[in-house]
Amino acid sequence: MPGQLTLDTLNRASAADFVAALGDIFEYSPWVATEAAARRPFKNLAALRDAMIASIEAAPAEQRLKLIRSHPDLANKTQRAQGLTAHSTREQDGAGLDRLSETEFAMFERLNNAYKAKFGFPFMICVRRHTKDSILDAFARRLNNDPAQEQKEALTEIARIASLRLAGMIASGEPLAVHGTLSVHVLDTHRGLPADGMKFSLVELSRHGEERLIADLVTNADGRTSPEPIEGRPVPIGTYELRFQAAAYFAGRGVPLSDPPFLDVIPLRFGVSEPEQHLHVPLLVTPWSYSTYRGS
Amino acid sequence: MPGQLTLDTLNRASAADFVAALGDIFEYSPWVATEAAARRPFKNLAALRDAMIASIEAAPAEQRLKLIRSHPDLANKTQRAQGLTAHSTREQDGAGLDRLSETEFAMFERLNNAYKAKFGFPFMICVRRHTKDSILDAFARRLNNDPAQEQKEALTEIARIASLRLAGMIASGEPLAVHGTLSVHVLDTHRGLPADGMKFSLVELSRHGEERLIADLVTNADGRTSPEPIEGRPVPIGTYELRFQAAAYFAGRGVPLSDPPFLDVIPLRFGVSEPEQHLHVPLLVTPWSYSTYRGS
Amino acid sequence: MPGQLTLDTLNRASAADFVAALGDIFEYSPWVATEAAARRPFKNLAALRDAMIASIEAAPAEQRLKLIRSHPDLANKTQRAQGLTAHSTREQDGAGLDRLSETEFAMFERLNNAYKAKFGFPFMICVRRHTKDSILDAFARRLNNDPAQEQKEALTEIARIASLRLAGMIASGEPLAVHGTLSVHVLDTHRGLPADGMKFSLVELSRHGEERLIADLVTNADGRTSPEPIEGRPVPIGTYELRFQAAAYFAGRGVPLSDPPFLDVIPLRFGVSEPEQHLHVPLLVTPWSYSTYRGS
Amino acid sequence: MPGQLTLDTLNRASAADFVAALGDIFEYSPWVATEAAARRPFKNLAALRDAMIASIEAAPAEQRLKLIRSHPDLANKTQRAQGLTAHSTREQDGAGLDRLSETEFAMFERLNNAYKAKFGFPFMICVRRHTKDSILDAFARRLNNDPAQEQKEALTEIARIASLRLAGMIASGEPLAVHGTLSVHVLDTHRGLPADGMKFSLVELSRHGEERLIADLVTNADGRTSPEPIEGRPVPIGTYELRFQAAAYFAGRGVPLSDPPFLDVIPLRFGVSEPEQHLHVPLLVTPWSYSTYRGS
Repeated sequence: MPGQLTLDTLNRASAADFVAALGDIFEYSPWVATEAAARRPFKNLAALRDAMIASIEAAPAEQRLKLIRSHPDLANKTQRAQGLTAHSTREQDGAGLDRLSETEFAMFERLNNAYKAKFGFPFMICVRRHTKDSILDAFARRLNNDPAQEQKEALTEIARIASLRLAGMIASGEPLAVHGTLSVHVLDTHRGLPADGMKFSLVELSRHGEERLIADLVTNADGRTSPEPIEGRPVPIGTYELRFQAAAYFAGRGVPLSDPPFLDVIPLRFGVSEPEQHLHVPLLVTPWSYSTYRGS
Repeated sequence: MPGQLTLDTLNRASAADFVAALGDIFEYSPWVATEAAARRPFKNLAALRDAMIASIEAAPAEQRLKLIRSHPDLANKTQRAQGLTAHSTREQDGAGLDRLSETEFAMFERLNNAYKAKFGFPFMICVRRHTKDSILDAFARRLNNDPAQEQKEALTEIARIASLRLAGMIASGEPLAVHGTLSVHVLDTHRGLPADGMKFSLVELSRHGEERLIADLVTNADGRTSPEPIEGRPVPIGTYELRFQAAAYFAGRGVPLSDPPFLDVIPLRFGVSEPEQHLHVPLLVTPWSYSTYRGS
Repeated sequence: MPGQLTLDTLNRASAADFVAALGDIFEYSPWVATEAAARRPFKNLAALRDAMIASIEAAPAEQRLKLIRSHPDLANKTQRAQGLTAHSTREQDGAGLDRLSETEFAMFERLNNAYKAKFGFPFMICVRRHTKDSILDAFARRLNNDPAQEQKEALTEIARIASLRLAGMIASGEPLAVHGTLSVHVLDTHRGLPADGMKFSLVELSRHGEERLIADLVTNADGRTSPEPIEGRPVPIGTYELRFQAAAYFAGRGVPLSDPPFLDVIPLRFGVSEPEQHLHVPLLVTPWSYSTYRGS
Repeated sequence: MPGQLTLDTLNRASAADFVAALGDIFEYSPWVATEAAARRPFKNLAALRDAMIASIEAAPAEQRLKLIRSHPDLANKTQRAQGLTAHSTREQDGAGLDRLSETEFAMFERLNNAYKAKFGFPFMICVRRHTKDSILDAFARRLNNDPAQEQKEALTEIARIASLRLAGMIASGEPLAVHGTLSVHVLDTHRGLPADGMKFSLVELSRHGEERLIADLVTNADGRTSPEPIEGRPVPIGTYELRFQAAAYFAGRGVPLSDPPFLDVIPLRFGVSEPEQHLHVPLLVTPWSYSTYRGS
């Protein structure tokens, strides 16, 4: 959540205060903030972010590599208590990296070691945009890159991480487009009104059949939720299931149902490919029919 | 599957041959067939079945009770090799009673013992119309019956069992209405044609999260299957899930999809409450939307 | 459209200026404004409106009747140039009363005469909430009222007319809930995106097969229109048809269609019963399928 | 409707009887039947039809042209009483050619004269596969053909006409695939059952806003009609509208509706491009939503 820090404050701060505030945006690399301080004022957050990234792109190859190498190993769970910045710890938990099974841990470690052996730096990925499965997919795909391609991808990921950190720290009238939304809308087409009071849950599914409950929710009088099931952050790339308690809802309104009901819990399973997108998932439902679509 | 035995043959057979053929329709109670033999000819299977049931209803209370008591204990797995007729063994396997977990076995045994203690006869249920869950539900509900009600329910179940046995043995132009159908139809509304070659599976779901694969199937040029996913038998009361491999189908036709696809495997979960019904489950699907309804 | 006049200005104006501004809110009855001037200040528009209506309800029966009788005859087209206030002329055109056929004119006149003969005052109706058909329906229904009921209905309609006049004159942070919306949303479920650039028209249908084009529109990048097809006014009670040029849209995107197309112009016909409602009509469409529902 | 005449009878008839029966299949050209008589027996109707067409294709150019020229002028209404065979009169009425307006008649005549001037023979078209609009479209398109192309198209149409005549005269276990079907299915997804007793009409629409009622129908207990709205003939290429009386249906079942109802008469407008196709048009409907698709 954006704090009280504003771009205006930063534009007018001393260089020392500016660097104190933004020195951690790039892992152990306050020099990026130092260079940005000299380029003030910035008219909006995007201009600040772009200046910081331009500094990195203009830096000597050596220094860019050092920046990448400053980041923690993704799969090294044991290092966590020691070497991670506060930012990194919070972000890596998001994708469930602290809940790896032994098998998954082994796989991460194997991929990570292969990666480091090939490229000489740790695997960079903006974990808040990902689930465990999509991280594994990215690992597998990027291991095939050549070193120049991969250094570019690593810097792209670092820029994404930095953008999210900036968006999280600095209040702005022109926010960075780094957050997505997953919204749900339930229409009771039996009555022709929004479904008010339908319970549902949102679950993340992994390829190996593992489930992670994200939220237990209930629709309001508009058939929606407030806040949305996911908002104010990227929607992690992955597979999800919404589970709507349709029979309980209709039975609660006195609609006669069969026993067992034709529709009881309705699962809607869908994939997310663009974390910054507004993905809208409607459910149009009667006790005997339903439909859904990718809305907007 | 109906054999060569026809109603006409039975109508003209000697009483001894008639009883030899139909003596097992009611468990260890050839007297029902003996009485029916004297009422020939029957114009159709329903008339034969009704005559047999009328015999039972007209029999002294003692004899009706003896008929019920001749049936095997549902939960007594250990008796199976010894006391079950060939009919009973086959029928009880259908509901998965040979795949009970230890916990389930214990629950069945407890309910069965309570039932026998209350009513003095074993629990009768036409297992081919049921899943494990619906049998447990029936147990719980019927334990609350008074003895007269329950004897009536037990005889209703015995009549259902007998009807299915008759339908299975005797070929007839006027079959007994003891079978249901579960049919599936997939319409590719992206192309406006039946979905040809979409893989899907049909799974039975238990309340405790257990799954049982019923069939792996693929749609034909009409978007259907032949035979239907379930036909020629009652559709067991329970909860099911169809899982359609939508993304594989559309990718195979060159339709561009996101990665991961918005819709990959589409689960349709539904309940069956009337085993003799024709239940039709259509899926209308594009890569970005789908709908379903209870068809007919 | 609200002008510069604000409630704050009115609260602080002289009584004379207040009455000059609001004297026409009730037809030829500035005394209502005069009484309201004495009850200032009003915290919002609803309080002002309610005070004016309370004045009318508290007035002697004679005076209430005189207020009703001050209104013009609805069906008397010939009086228009002479006796109507500027407010009334504009409002009555909205329902198409200036486009009556001779037959309709005769029917209005006959109903109007029967009404005046029975009740002794002209028929009051807030025409901006109506179409010709719904005005005729109201005439027929209200002719059966007894005089007390009908006087009450007439005053209700006068209050509705006054509310719309107030809403149209006075800018307010808390607007009166006297406007509805008709919004449209087109989802191209063939591509999984809002339909951008689909032409459509909105037509009012009368019971006698007459059509009146309300608007020719085209969807924007969100699959919507801005402004909405109807907004900033009540949505008249009546029957409408949306006509979407689906084939032209899909052909323009290179989607192969049959000749003639299975779906060319898609008509969605629907009724409006609550003029102050937000009625949302979505169209989910592929070249081979579509669906719609009353949204919100 | 197929009469008593069977292929078997024709295979065994004398050559004279065979020609007497089939001499009119090709307009004023009994020689085609004479040649076919010599090639008997035919194993099915398709073989008979193909033999007749092969005769025509093998005939000298002169004779083929004469066959085409034996056909009546499509637009010459005045010739009708005189020169048309019984077959031709019945067939041309099907497309509404006896109901031409003066303008349409003038257009037909103009196109027909241009056609005859260019090709030297009358315009051939299997009218039972067409509506007035699609005949005009074909005229306009085919006027651009070169003479060889157009002679081929004319013979194709003559073969279609002959196939329909054969199918209409001769009963067969293997019918010719010359008929299509338009079927309708209404699912009441408010109750989860077929809509029993919903009235609807099927109307043919012309490009100029003219409507022609084809049938007033009502759904049966399966939500269908028997016979289908169109069957036993080609479904003419054109534009149609189904109009379902949804509000009357739901009101008759005691479902509360708004006034006017949100959905009253539901129009489904669709085009037919393949007359021999089975086109299935389902309506899934609640009082507040509906959907349709090209079924099969």
